[in-house]
Amino acid sequence: MNEFELIARLTQSPPTNAAVVTGPGDDCAVLDLGQPGQLILFKTDAVVEGIHFTRETPPEKIGRKALARCLSDIAAMAGTPVAALVTLALPTNFDPEFVARVYAGLNALATQHHVAVVGGETTTNPDRLLLSVALLGQVPRGRQVLRSGAQPGDAIFVTGELGGSRAGKHLDFEPRLTEARWLAGHFQLHAMLDLSDGLAGDLRHILDASQVGAEILKSAIPVSPAAKLQARTHAPAHRPAALAALTDGEDFELLFTLASRDAVKLLDAWKKAFSGLKLTCIGKIIPGSALLLRDKTGSHPLAAHGYVHFA
Amino acid sequence: MNEFELIARLTQSPPTNAAVVTGPGDDCAVLDLGQPGQLILFKTDAVVEGIHFTRETPPEKIGRKALARCLSDIAAMAGTPVAALVTLALPTNFDPEFVARVYAGLNALATQHHVAVVGGETTTNPDRLLLSVALLGQVPRGRQVLRSGAQPGDAIFVTGELGGSRAGKHLDFEPRLTEARWLAGHFQLHAMLDLSDGLAGDLRHILDASQVGAEILKSAIPVSPAAKLQARTHAPAHRPAALAALTDGEDFELLFTLASRDAVKLLDAWKKAFSGLKLTCIGKIIPGSALLLRDKTGSHPLAAHGYVHFA
Repeated sequence: MNEFELIARLTQSPPTNAAVVTGPGDDCAVLDLGQPGQLILFKTDAVVEGIHFTRETPPEKIGRKALARCLSDIAAMAGTPVAALVTLALPTNFDPEFVARVYAGLNALATQHHVAVVGGETTTNPDRLLLSVALLGQVPRGRQVLRSGAQPGDAIFVTGELGGSRAGKHLDFEPRLTEARWLAGHFQLHAMLDLSDGLAGDLRHILDASQVGAEILKSAIPVSPAAKLQARTHAPAHRPAALAALTDGEDFELLFTLASRDAVKLLDAWKKAFSGLKLTCIGKIIPGSALLLRDKTGSHPLAAHGYVHFA
Repeated sequence: MNEFELIARLTQSPPTNAAVVTGPGDDCAVLDLGQPGQLILFKTDAVVEGIHFTRETPPEKIGRKALARCLSDIAAMAGTPVAALVTLALPTNFDPEFVARVYAGLNALATQHHVAVVGGETTTNPDRLLLSVALLGQVPRGRQVLRSGAQPGDAIFVTGELGGSRAGKHLDFEPRLTEARWLAGHFQLHAMLDLSDGLAGDLRHILDASQVGAEILKSAIPVSPAAKLQARTHAPAHRPAALAALTDGEDFELLFTLASRDAVKLLDAWKKAFSGLKLTCIGKIIPGSALLLRDKTGSHPLAAHGYVHFA
């Protein structure tokens, strides 16, 4: 049983109440607590030593990454983050200076995004550091973008470049908060998420939630320089750069769909608003449930699975 | 450096913003997100195998305890819980049935308190199970009870009976949500918290936050049958039952203060409202900063420290 199957099983019929607008299964939970004009976004995410970082990772980057992952989920709903709680599970004999540096990295990113750090706790995890962040955000009522709204005919877009994140980007990525709010403010987005498990696996989440299929154009996928470099230099364990871009995790770019009639207008407006960040149309939503990859030889079912935590 | 010192150091000047009503250092953070008449409560709490439970603990009780601890913090603010996120960090080769039972225990308690479980995540913690809960709640604007409002002359009250929680209560305690809302609705509480680290240590938190002292009457402390039994039966490692009641952790009872003129009225009303649960006046708030314990021989500074996680 992998992570997705386990989550699916355990979240089949969770306790719910009248405040829940969107429960488990999207980038954030969405709650209605009676604020006029606003809904609340609620998210947690944990990073664990040996899985999301190593003993050699600079502590500031561990703290930064833990918060950035949650911010990226708020971005995926087109929301604005407000306040975070930090849970730090520390090995025995931890170094207080190390912990202070973890917080320094986290606090710097929080300040940058006007997020308040309103508490949390330290506890003991004898064997390794674990850092979990809980984040509250807001989104204008009705403007939240779910995974479930993709429609046949939609164009599929992705920000930035994909693959090879583990070479460094996973510690330094910029959560696409500004871009996501701009997108949702100017266009009718149908579905959106942030790429954490790899394009192929994450697009599958949109397709499953929206009960549609997709065809991706292989040549259109924006492959990162890091993925290209890895493909060239790690010859013994050869892995094409396009495969890395399809399946590597932790890109933390936005993947979204909107009506194809809006595609050209979007690309024009994007270039003016965000000249430093690539935006690419990589394919289209189709009826059915298949995920197809089109290359020179035709269109093929995409067997490659996204990055799975419990591999 | 113990937990309290570390937290104090790391939370000296956290990033903040206009939404923050009460930041780090109380039972919950309090946020103002513009709801008319309501404020938001925000809390996380983690339980770790080998520290808060063992491999032998029934999994349902692990899940129950993880949520109950957070609910107890919402109670300490006189709030109402709304929605929870669950982070489950699982050892390698975990048993899905075990995980399902953890959720069953958590979900049952959530249902009982009308709390929605709106998501969360599973991740890997190779060596031991760690379960963290993030909880959102609400409290009528202005009715939240902080730790910082105790005043000289206040009577100090505690619900239930203290000490010996580790014999079983720590897995089965009832978060005092109903009682706390009733208290805040009928009386002007000055300060409140839930007892997690032991009466002596937790009362110290109220005293520090309120810049006052306290005198506790030793004979008034309600000692639990479990603490009395332990004092009788563990003769080789003899520990008086009153000391257990002062310093054992995880009682999860309410400790609060209010003006002494309200004390008799409170006791009368309480007996009618909650006949099954003890409420005891254990002492008074005094000027200064000392924590004194009065017994037959006089009033002595209380050296015994509350339960500290990093001992």
